[in-house]
Amino acid sequence: MNRRDLDFILYEVENVEALCQTERYQHCDRPTFDAALDTAHQLAHSHFHQYNAKGDRHPPQYCQETDTLTLLPEHVAAHRAYSDAGFLTTSMDAEVGGSQMPVAVSGAVGLHFSSANAGFSAHFALNVGAAKILQHHGTDEQRAHVLPKLLSGEWCGTMCLSETHAGSSLTDIRTTAHPQPDGTYKIRGNKMWITAAENNFGGTIAHMGISLFLVPKHALSFSEEGVSLGDRPASSSAWAGATGGATGHLVGEPNQGLHCMFIMMNELRFQVGLGGVGPALAGYLYSLQYARQRTQGRSPLCRDPSTPMVPIIEHSDVKRMLLLQKAYVEGALGLCMYTAGVIDALATTADAAARSDKLLLLELLTPVVKAWPSEWCLEANKWAMQVLGGYGYTQDFPLEQLYRDARPNMIYEGTSGALDLLGRKANSHAYLTMTGHTAVAWQWLRQGTAARRGLLRLEAEGGDASADDEAFYRGKLHTMQWFTRQELSKTEGMAQLLCSLDDTNVSMRGNWF
Amino acid sequence: MNRRDLDFILYEVENVEALCQTERYQHCDRPTFDAALDTAHQLAHSHFHQYNAKGDRHPPQYCQETDTLTLLPEHVAAHRAYSDAGFLTTSMDAEVGGSQMPVAVSGAVGLHFSSANAGFSAHFALNVGAAKILQHHGTDEQRAHVLPKLLSGEWCGTMCLSETHAGSSLTDIRTTAHPQPDGTYKIRGNKMWITAAENNFGGTIAHMGISLFLVPKHALSFSEEGVSLGDRPASSSAWAGATGGATGHLVGEPNQGLHCMFIMMNELRFQVGLGGVGPALAGYLYSLQYARQRTQGRSPLCRDPSTPMVPIIEHSDVKRMLLLQKAYVEGALGLCMYTAGVIDALATTADAAARSDKLLLLELLTPVVKAWPSEWCLEANKWAMQVLGGYGYTQDFPLEQLYRDARPNMIYEGTSGALDLLGRKANSHAYLTMTGHTAVAWQWLRQGTAARRGLLRLEAEGGDASADDEAFYRGKLHTMQWFTRQELSKTEGMAQLLCSLDDTNVSMRGNWF
Ligand SMILES: Cc1cc2nc3c(=O)[nH]c(=O)nc-3n(C[C@H](O)[C@H](O)[C@H](O)COP(=O)(O)OP(=O)(O)OC[C@H]3O[C@@H](n4cnc5c(N)ncnc54)[C@H](O)[C@@H]3O)c2cc1C
Ligand SMILES: Cc1cc2nc3c(=O)[nH]c(=O)nc-3n(C[C@H](O)[C@H](O)[C@H](O)COP(=O)(O)OP(=O)(O)OC[C@H]3O[C@@H](n4cnc5c(N)ncnc54)[C@H](O)[C@@H]3O)c2cc1C
Repeated sequence: MNRRDLDFILYEVENVEALCQTERYQHCDRPTFDAALDTAHQLAHSHFHQYNAKGDRHPPQYCQETDTLTLLPEHVAAHRAYSDAGFLTTSMDAEVGGSQMPVAVSGAVGLHFSSANAGFSAHFALNVGAAKILQHHGTDEQRAHVLPKLLSGEWCGTMCLSETHAGSSLTDIRTTAHPQPDGTYKIRGNKMWITAAENNFGGTIAHMGISLFLVPKHALSFSEEGVSLGDRPASSSAWAGATGGATGHLVGEPNQGLHCMFIMMNELRFQVGLGGVGPALAGYLYSLQYARQRTQGRSPLCRDPSTPMVPIIEHSDVKRMLLLQKAYVEGALGLCMYTAGVIDALATTADAAARSDKLLLLELLTPVVKAWPSEWCLEANKWAMQVLGGYGYTQDFPLEQLYRDARPNMIYEGTSGALDLLGRKANSHAYLTMTGHTAVAWQWLRQGTAARRGLLRLEAEGGDASADDEAFYRGKLHTMQWFTRQELSKTEGMAQLLCSLDDTNVSMRGNWF
Repeated sequence: MNRRDLDFILYEVENVEALCQTERYQHCDRPTFDAALDTAHQLAHSHFHQYNAKGDRHPPQYCQETDTLTLLPEHVAAHRAYSDAGFLTTSMDAEVGGSQMPVAVSGAVGLHFSSANAGFSAHFALNVGAAKILQHHGTDEQRAHVLPKLLSGEWCGTMCLSETHAGSSLTDIRTTAHPQPDGTYKIRGNKMWITAAENNFGGTIAHMGISLFLVPKHALSFSEEGVSLGDRPASSSAWAGATGGATGHLVGEPNQGLHCMFIMMNELRFQVGLGGVGPALAGYLYSLQYARQRTQGRSPLCRDPSTPMVPIIEHSDVKRMLLLQKAYVEGALGLCMYTAGVIDALATTADAAARSDKLLLLELLTPVVKAWPSEWCLEANKWAMQVLGGYGYTQDFPLEQLYRDARPNMIYEGTSGALDLLGRKANSHAYLTMTGHTAVAWQWLRQGTAARRGLLRLEAEGGDASADDEAFYRGKLHTMQWFTRQELSKTEGMAQLLCSLDDTNVSMRGNWF
């Protein structure tokens, strides 16, 4: 974790402190935020980072006889420690017992965990999502009995949408619900890919589907979890409804499930975007440290083999790989934090016109904040691995796992290809990339402006105790320049291509491949 | 394998048959080539593709007590079958017992194996490389005794350059050789990353280093092989010289080793490029077949959920992912085959001026043919995985392994960043990409021209028995259009950036990161 950068983005770019003036966040101040970040830092290190590789080598074990799934004891302990530290409630309303912190701060807390252990930390967002749905759509009883258990981590939340034959196409799911005389429903069907669908954290698992039903886990049976490229500790499972159907409790109105679910999905899309930043940040920092230590070759101007080799960070192509990572990772983080700021502004603004503007902006940003970091932070991970040369390819170094764990971000919560940018389905990917590159360049401009402000401040203060700060700000300005010249410049070609209405794609026929 | 495409590139684009008019290849004709490709197809399927996933799940086992490495029995059998089919000699001169086929044809043979099992087929090129070095630089005794064993597959060849502290920087290796009274040398040092350094194929392993020494394996001790992201069956090993030094036999002149080695390295760089095409081709064909079968969603114009879902190949974003793969994979294959053609032309041309032109071209193409397919075929694999959605991420489908196995191509035989394009070290990656994109667009132009010729021929022939051929040619023209519009167009921006002499990269300082 680069705390200096996180502080910069939170306080110097986004000015999160200003939120403490609003009614919603008046109980907060910078020390509150800093304390949360400090705790997150410690916990992420002691309970998550330490067992990242171990979790990858020891995926959850399913036992057919007892129909139980056993996770690494260290991960069970991590789940408990995270819950006990109150991190499941960071962004929840005080009304339901939450700490009611800005989304930007709870996102920054989350980043510590996704960069320490992307595979195992993904499931927490599902608890929070489920809790938010219950808060807004649950019955009094559900709010009284289920909500506190989700927020204490005693119970787990899942999102049960996908079925084997229907992933992107949610209108085609086949699970059915039949009303029973006692007001409950019988749920029949099969689900697949359900993150955290089974675990041994202790409590019940609350499954949520469409319409929105709360289904306690003991009513279901599970099949063995699949083995995937990465994210091994996430224990995605297939589940099959018990014979005769499982008992479900309706949440909200019938047939409004997808609507309620979108509360969870939009929040999750933001989380997936930010989650994509996690492993890329870890990879960037690791490869940076490696590049400072590994010596290899000499300057192109030096032909004397008896001189010592130089740290590879001095080779211009290694600088390229580091700059590219810094530009993608810190740019993506900026975009996520800006989006969090929009969500926070919505939560603190009553003015109708301002709200409708922000809502429109959020609608535009949501697919971008999901898709862009998922794709470009994966690209960053590819180059982090490359900085280590052959070593990056081995399990003795963390890079290859990061590269695997970063991959599903492009898939879950809506594949990039099926995401909808203001209704554009043709050339959707090109629109997403162009919009994403432009939005990230804009974030770099904001970071550059803040860095310039910082430099002016240092100048005014005088003294050279601030050498580190000066280097930090200069690095920001330089990376802004890199992103503008090397990446933003590509959007011109993308725009021309989109304006030309190139239809090579659409007019390609299936039998021409 | 798409044999139609391979035939197209070999016979309609490269006109490999014309080589049969030259003295060197007068013993060949199209049936000779076709027979080799047919056998390769069968063998690749029965002995390589079948055990691709199994080899990945069961990497070679090292036993400390007996100091032996045990490979999957199926892989040992595959090694034997490949050798027995004579594929180690396809491109070797008749003078040393080879089939003396054009490099383009032996490359096409090799493609069958790299697409069937990238991890296990990489080591064959090392035998061939070692054999070529011995043919040109070996003593009569080495040629008489070692060469035939390498070509029969009884012995294995390796390339022992890398050491832990020196990968890119070969001038810094520490292994030493001391001449002995009997004319042999004592070799002392440690090597790492040596593909096929240990195996249980049966015979001896001939290690080659710098100066160039032939070191029989029994003189060395091995440490346990590392576990890597992919390419598991390749059994890269670290080796340490036996105490007191191992006995080495000099090949060629002292201190000329790196020069001799470059024969092997240039050939290997071409092979690595072509090897990168293998998994990408497999991924493309698999995802294409999947996209034709998997149904999901409906046309954007259809709002009726009671209509059946459509095959995903009908969605424009899926077409994008398939077109992009086709453009990268078949374009890269074209580039490799064109390069093979240049090597073949050199082997059949005596004219000094023509040779010097071709040599210059080859010098330009060699880094490009290594680097471009390594990078862009990996990109193709990323999108192949994406076509399968969540399924692409699981071990039940072959995509995730392809994605892992394709990764080291960017690393071995010179990382992309350390490759030298006509001496350009600064911005080398940007030069490589721009040159690569331009060279591949040129190959697409050649393929498009051949496709147009094909269509005219079909028209002249009349009849509709040729519907498949017509679709094939139209697909080629359409993909040429895609590559030109979507990819070649990017080179303009790249060129502008290079011309602007942007130095953001070089001027970035280590402490600004
Ligand atoms: C690690 C992991 C964890 C997951 N966790 C959960 C979870 O907790 N809960 C849950 O409900 N699901 C979960 N999923 C499932 C995930 O949401 C789906 O995999 C995803 O929605 C894609 O569905 P699919 O796999 O069926 O692919 P498909 O829908 O079959 O898509 C295949 C390809 O077709 C494309 N495509 C499909 N339809 C269209 C269209 N209309 N337009 C353009 N392109 C299209 C897609 O972009 C994709 O490239 C998880 C998946 C993974 C890998
Ligand atoms: C699967 C596998 C199989 C292999 N098989 C063999 C084999 O059979 N025989 C063998 O000898 N080796 C083999 N290798 C080793 C391989 O060739 C080296 O890993 C590679 O040359 C890089 O060296 P390195 O790993 O020490 O990285 P380093 O040289 O430490 O490079 C680290 C990073 O610095 C960059 N860099 C280094 N120097 C420069 C420079 N001067 N300018 C710009 N950038 C620079 C590199 O591009 C890289 O990104 C294998 C490697 C792998 C992964």
